[in-house]
Amino acid sequence: MVMKKFVNRAEDLTKELLEGFAEAHKDLVELLPANTVVNKKLGAANRVTIVTLGGAGHEPALSGFVGEGMVDISVVGDIFAAPGPDACVAAMKLADKGKGVLFIVLNHAGDMLTANLAMKQAEKEGLKVLKVVTQEDVANAPRENADDRRGLVGCIPTYKIAAAAAAEGKSLEEVAAIAQDFADNMATLAVAVKTATHPANGAEFAQLADDEMEVGMGQHGEGGGGRQKMKSADDTAVLMCDTLISDLSLKSGEKIMLILNGVGATTLMELFIIYRKCVAHLKSKGIEVVANAVGELLTVQEQAGFQMFMARMKENYVKYWNAPCRTPYMTK
Amino acid sequence: MVMKKFVNRAEDLTKELLEGFAEAHKDLVELLPANTVVNKKLGAANRVTIVTLGGAGHEPALSGFVGEGMVDISVVGDIFAAPGPDACVAAMKLADKGKGVLFIVLNHAGDMLTANLAMKQAEKEGLKVLKVVTQEDVANAPRENADDRRGLVGCIPTYKIAAAAAAEGKSLEEVAAIAQDFADNMATLAVAVKTATHPANGAEFAQLADDEMEVGMGQHGEGGGGRQKMKSADDTAVLMCDTLISDLSLKSGEKIMLILNGVGATTLMELFIIYRKCVAHLKSKGIEVVANAVGELLTVQEQAGFQMFMARMKENYVKYWNAPCRTPYMTK
Repeated sequence: MVMKKFVNRAEDLTKELLEGFAEAHKDLVELLPANTVVNKKLGAANRVTIVTLGGAGHEPALSGFVGEGMVDISVVGDIFAAPGPDACVAAMKLADKGKGVLFIVLNHAGDMLTANLAMKQAEKEGLKVLKVVTQEDVANAPRENADDRRGLVGCIPTYKIAAAAAAEGKSLEEVAAIAQDFADNMATLAVAVKTATHPANGAEFAQLADDEMEVGMGQHGEGGGGRQKMKSADDTAVLMCDTLISDLSLKSGEKIMLILNGVGATTLMELFIIYRKCVAHLKSKGIEVVANAVGELLTVQEQAGFQMFMARMKENYVKYWNAPCRTPYMTK
Repeated sequence: MVMKKFVNRAEDLTKELLEGFAEAHKDLVELLPANTVVNKKLGAANRVTIVTLGGAGHEPALSGFVGEGMVDISVVGDIFAAPGPDACVAAMKLADKGKGVLFIVLNHAGDMLTANLAMKQAEKEGLKVLKVVTQEDVANAPRENADDRRGLVGCIPTYKIAAAAAAEGKSLEEVAAIAQDFADNMATLAVAVKTATHPANGAEFAQLADDEMEVGMGQHGEGGGGRQKMKSADDTAVLMCDTLISDLSLKSGEKIMLILNGVGATTLMELFIIYRKCVAHLKSKGIEVVANAVGELLTVQEQAGFQMFMARMKENYVKYWNAPCRTPYMTK
């Protein structure tokens, strides 16, 4: 596959995309040195604040959700790479308004290395920071080995839930406990039908035959073990729903959040067709969808495919998900 | 190019995608027979209302913008096909709350045929309807032959501007005049680097060599005449900006809206890189961007490329663009 992308010099990718992002959304965010994207209203915050980190290349994630009601600071690494711990510690200091900082980290090796070093440094400096890790990919480890599970789109609703709890004036310990409980009750499964190219070097993430799809592929082309013949929308929906229902041990009478996250080239048209089948299939099992998102939240360049996300919803989570927020790519 | 999409039976595409869309956004829209998507708050409207029509396959457009502050009713045709005039007349009747209906139509042959038949029928029945046509593709006709220009992403800001004027209590004649003036001051240029497949039959829209892009390609693969070697993000931005600046005769000191509309597989990363260069280039000519959108508003299946839109902004247009709205894919 030949890379055909509108880019300039590979070494300027992250710098240029963040400049354009910050310019386009200058009413909501500010770009500081060290690729640090800050909620423009952070100065007025009198609550627990939210910091996250992660590589570029997954737009609108993660920085597209910086703003009131979601993320206060996103520390951005280079394409698919973690930022350094120093930038994270600086972000924690900037974010802390006296109520402490929740540090939300996706479970990927590089991000975790940086996050753990940053937490050690924060402790040494006496900062009040708690960390919550999102790790919900059901494809690469069983639930009992959740520490091996990759972080996929689940970080986005976790930001939203945590920030809404923080906006209510809850303590850092309370906000962290809520975010952790939400994260413990979520599961994601991805599927890819065409892979993507690395925007800096053109490398193809993986190869799929013309009649194949791969269930479980990670968001950097990591193998998922579910390579199979292309299925219809309805068959794919049922296959993926059942895996998530089973992983979460969802029972009749339970309520969930359902997110279909397009990762690049898959159309909203397809996501709507799948969404329709998911809701009907869940209903047949007595499970009700009470919160949702259908669209591109965390992408994998021009990959075709999507991530299906479910989370068990307790009463406050619906309220928190629907609470006001104002960010470049989510407004409620 | 092999089609790899999550679909079921081709003949059910539109029905299923609308069912999924309406289910996912049931707090905001209602799906009525004849593929009619209605603003759930239409019943309470005491103002001029907005009706539009157009084929499916361009999601989130057009129905993704049905809701308070944008479109009241979207009458949807099959994939890339216009609906029939009867459904449009029925929608006008349903929409009319005594203040009249603005009917916004994109300039494509099928849509115009339906729209003109519907307008005749509406007149015969004594309905108070005015029509505004969006026709802003600079690639396929000069400005003096604007009636030949295709309607591209410019319909979306036209909905927003018109609806905000309607929400202020303006008369149908006033709302139509504002929408027409906004539409007369807009211009769009598209570029494609990879074409798409028709979701019902798998037909490839066009073919582009591995090192080619095509400036001016329409949103159904219509030729644009601008086939050329792939350019960098910055060179593409300048080339396209200059064409639009020239078409609109923009002068130093003027203010514009700039929209970069991803049509499918082109990443937000790329759009941000291009946006950054556009703003800098415009600034060098004394032109200021005072309103914007960067993202996927009107797509062309899995095509890679984007539409660059500019509109001359008069004072009220900024206010109207920023006015509150609540729709599935635009909230302000």
